[in-house]
Amino acid sequence: MQNPTSTPLRIVIIGGVAGGASAATRARRCNANAEITILEKGPAVSFANCGLPYHLGGEIEDREKLIVATPELFWDRFRIRVRTGHEVTKIDREAATVTGKNSTQEEFKVPYDRLILATGSEPIRPEFCNIQADNVFQLWTLDDMDRILAYMKKRPCKKATVIGGGFIGLEVVEQLQHRQISIALIEKLPQVLGPLDWEMAKLIELELEKQKVQLHLGATVESLLTSNQRVTAVKLTNGSSVTSDLVIVGAGVRPRTALAESAGLSLGEQGGVRINEFCQTDDPNIYAVGDMVEYHHGTLDRNLRVPLAGPANRAGRVAGTHAATGHAQPLGSVQGTAIVRVFGLAAGATGINERMCGQFDIDCRTATIQAPHHANYFPGARSLTIKLIYRATDGKVLGAQAVGAEGVDKRIDVIATLLNFHGTVYDLAQLDLAYAPPFGSAKDPIHMAAFAAQNDLEKAPALLPFNADLAGLQVVDVRNNAELAKLPLDGAIHIPVDELAERWQELDPTLPTVTVCHSGKRAHVAACWLNGKGFQQPVLNLNGGMSIRKLSTTLP
Amino acid sequence: MQNPTSTPLRIVIIGGVAGGASAATRARRCNANAEITILEKGPAVSFANCGLPYHLGGEIEDREKLIVATPELFWDRFRIRVRTGHEVTKIDREAATVTGKNSTQEEFKVPYDRLILATGSEPIRPEFCNIQADNVFQLWTLDDMDRILAYMKKRPCKKATVIGGGFIGLEVVEQLQHRQISIALIEKLPQVLGPLDWEMAKLIELELEKQKVQLHLGATVESLLTSNQRVTAVKLTNGSSVTSDLVIVGAGVRPRTALAESAGLSLGEQGGVRINEFCQTDDPNIYAVGDMVEYHHGTLDRNLRVPLAGPANRAGRVAGTHAATGHAQPLGSVQGTAIVRVFGLAAGATGINERMCGQFDIDCRTATIQAPHHANYFPGARSLTIKLIYRATDGKVLGAQAVGAEGVDKRIDVIATLLNFHGTVYDLAQLDLAYAPPFGSAKDPIHMAAFAAQNDLEKAPALLPFNADLAGLQVVDVRNNAELAKLPLDGAIHIPVDELAERWQELDPTLPTVTVCHSGKRAHVAACWLNGKGFQQPVLNLNGGMSIRKLSTTLP
Repeated sequence: MQNPTSTPLRIVIIGGVAGGASAATRARRCNANAEITILEKGPAVSFANCGLPYHLGGEIEDREKLIVATPELFWDRFRIRVRTGHEVTKIDREAATVTGKNSTQEEFKVPYDRLILATGSEPIRPEFCNIQADNVFQLWTLDDMDRILAYMKKRPCKKATVIGGGFIGLEVVEQLQHRQISIALIEKLPQVLGPLDWEMAKLIELELEKQKVQLHLGATVESLLTSNQRVTAVKLTNGSSVTSDLVIVGAGVRPRTALAESAGLSLGEQGGVRINEFCQTDDPNIYAVGDMVEYHHGTLDRNLRVPLAGPANRAGRVAGTHAATGHAQPLGSVQGTAIVRVFGLAAGATGINERMCGQFDIDCRTATIQAPHHANYFPGARSLTIKLIYRATDGKVLGAQAVGAEGVDKRIDVIATLLNFHGTVYDLAQLDLAYAPPFGSAKDPIHMAAFAAQNDLEKAPALLPFNADLAGLQVVDVRNNAELAKLPLDGAIHIPVDELAERWQELDPTLPTVTVCHSGKRAHVAACWLNGKGFQQPVLNLNGGMSIRKLSTTLP
Repeated sequence: MQNPTSTPLRIVIIGGVAGGASAATRARRCNANAEITILEKGPAVSFANCGLPYHLGGEIEDREKLIVATPELFWDRFRIRVRTGHEVTKIDREAATVTGKNSTQEEFKVPYDRLILATGSEPIRPEFCNIQADNVFQLWTLDDMDRILAYMKKRPCKKATVIGGGFIGLEVVEQLQHRQISIALIEKLPQVLGPLDWEMAKLIELELEKQKVQLHLGATVESLLTSNQRVTAVKLTNGSSVTSDLVIVGAGVRPRTALAESAGLSLGEQGGVRINEFCQTDDPNIYAVGDMVEYHHGTLDRNLRVPLAGPANRAGRVAGTHAATGHAQPLGSVQGTAIVRVFGLAAGATGINERMCGQFDIDCRTATIQAPHHANYFPGARSLTIKLIYRATDGKVLGAQAVGAEGVDKRIDVIATLLNFHGTVYDLAQLDLAYAPPFGSAKDPIHMAAFAAQNDLEKAPALLPFNADLAGLQVVDVRNNAELAKLPLDGAIHIPVDELAERWQELDPTLPTVTVCHSGKRAHVAACWLNGKGFQQPVLNLNGGMSIRKLSTTLP
């Protein structure tokens, strides 16, 4: 209990969304007597950024729902003073004050004992945006959203182009489609959703194509063609152009660190503010949270920027506690967990992907499985694809990606939890998960993925990368005739799995051999059988089977 | 690779469902040359026990879907010999043979090198069932299910009574309701769903009542009243009777251990066969898995029977591997994770409950929260109640229960995963879970539960048990007027949370005080405020608020 008669601690928070709002309210709950002030340069605090695309598309009908808390609520409930339209331009660490100008250009100066920076990030504005045009937008604030809606009301759009196929880009694509607008998506990478490996992203690209979204992957915008101050087409460097009467640019974000930098606070390798486990910067009286900082990534054991709402809120809570009391439970590591809904599918990821393993020189292996999201015999089972990435040396789980219509979030969250404890595929295989037919399977897709990884590590059998060159291998296709007719595999020897025990001697045991089926499950049975029958080289199982292999025909 | 010319290892599995079937197929995958035989006393192997209630109710329309694998498939794909109708009556460990009689009363004798027992459990048949009646059933096998369906076809039922309010009992209740049968449920405990604490079970009981299920809790059956060899009513020891034209008894299961016992294999404290981490019994050549064994319970660090499909399948895999190869990854601990759908709600649990903490003398505390299952501002958010149980001394999570329309399975699975690593509420608060508006919240209900627990442990403020006697306390009700009108709290002082900062001095700071709101969230803000304003005794927060308190009016 604080002594109510002592001089109140002055806590100033710069930025009143997500991390800043969490820090402020938590500071109050930990300290009833502090003077707490939020300085927010925008017109609103505590709004639901993540909801913006959904109001754009009308799925969230009521704009008011996006306002989580008003300045009045902050005052009435928490005695937190919110000053909107207050942009801080300078931190004077010696005087312990912040100064700036408000929206009516009046200067202000606010003293602090503890300062919490939550200035977030801002969308990157590519050079091609530097034109006069009424129909080019970004979507980062309520104002942005309102402007887009106002424009669409004034000028009904038929063809919109979204530039950037990241999480927000895809949400915008989905939501504009709700408004019966035909959509083109331009992404400079050869895939959507960078956090996913490309074959998993491909599953989402197929869904986008199914929904008639025109995809331009590996495509760079050269310029926006305008007429009467309106963009009419997006010209690509490959010479083609995409007609558009609305352009939304989601080209990533950059941390807003100018204020922190000018105060001499140091940044990390990725350009975010460096913080410790209590969210303190170099200056122990100054904290920073949210998109502007670098968090400790648990799997990589490095600091990374993770501009997502979850870490921001949790960091805000830690900073608020520590600023208000001088102690706090330390901030945990992030795992880079993220998820997005794209029409009928969800795509989620946690930890690191295979590409990052390459970048950071981590010796990884991967296993990809398909399994129904709940008991196959129960109505409504939907196929779920899980890719598990694990260390080759000891099976430590490094990351996972999942794509499917149902149950993606659950599997990603379970694996994110396991990552928090540095668990292995052996741990994953033994998790005691909830099972009843409407909710899962006695062997959950998570277990199936872990089993596949475990078999791979124990070479019982090992998995062959789905996009491997099959030339020179004896390829044994154990699918049934109907499957073959739908999706042939040239050059393979066809023996259905249920005939293999009878017919395996038709194969040449001296050749290097790989077994193949739809998802890798029957091929596993087949490879085990052949390995046990004296084949001279270890028989391999094609990772993920034809369901993943078929994606590689468009390998970038 | 095994040498295909050596004498094949003979693996015999007794029981061909769940654990037995898993063991057999895994053994084959690990050893292509073993002779593998399943001896099953029933007419079918590898059927979906857990699906039986759902075919009874018609939700799974096609009976064939319940057959996971036929004897033909076992032979064709796995070269596993399945002998149905073969009941083993004796294990001769010295001779390493099993003997018994098949369904045509012929004796058989099968030698083994490795024996895997998977004889499962059988439903307990209470004494009152020992009558001549055509309409009293249990539901444990396909035959049981077929008999019930045949009876209902012959004699359409209007009023059914289900005896036993456990997981299967509730599934049967739900499914019979699908068939427009009016249902009475009789349970001898004062609550349904024993693994839940009673206030959480109460949420399910309210759903049952909403669905017009007639509940008889704490009710013991005295006898079944019959007429013309049919039960007409169930008579209770309290004198009342329940008219019924169909009775289904789900009074729990007991492990089938007679065979193991007669072979001199030892049992554990709970009457299940004792096994090691490779599922070996006292005899290293004899394994046991599934409902008949005791597993290591990770939270309790004791051996317990857990008659569920998940552990049976995982244990089968370990036993199959070890029997076939002599080595295996050890079996993990179970956490007692379970889930059931009951009409519009799901109820799940993992770890141990508060009642068990009492039984095992574990000093626990609990926090109960309500939160929307995904972002509140996104359409379709449904309320989720989570009860977290944790050790008072260090915050180690001991268990959790969740009830809600959506997202119960996800939260239970995340906490089950955390239990596997002996995590604390501090770990739970920092998990990096997947968030996008359709899937969760930046602060997930799991985080909210962990925050509540953390606040409780740090006495910032501590939680008062929801069913505590409020007499003698200054009760501060911070709900709004509309909430009060709907559900008054007598004797409380009413100050809405948003007026407390203005009006807190109306309260007496010398009195022991508790704050109350709907779910405990606003009351937390209020208690923090008052604690900071010099109240002489720590102000408490009523755990779970009125949403849980109101359940206690029927406290047993």
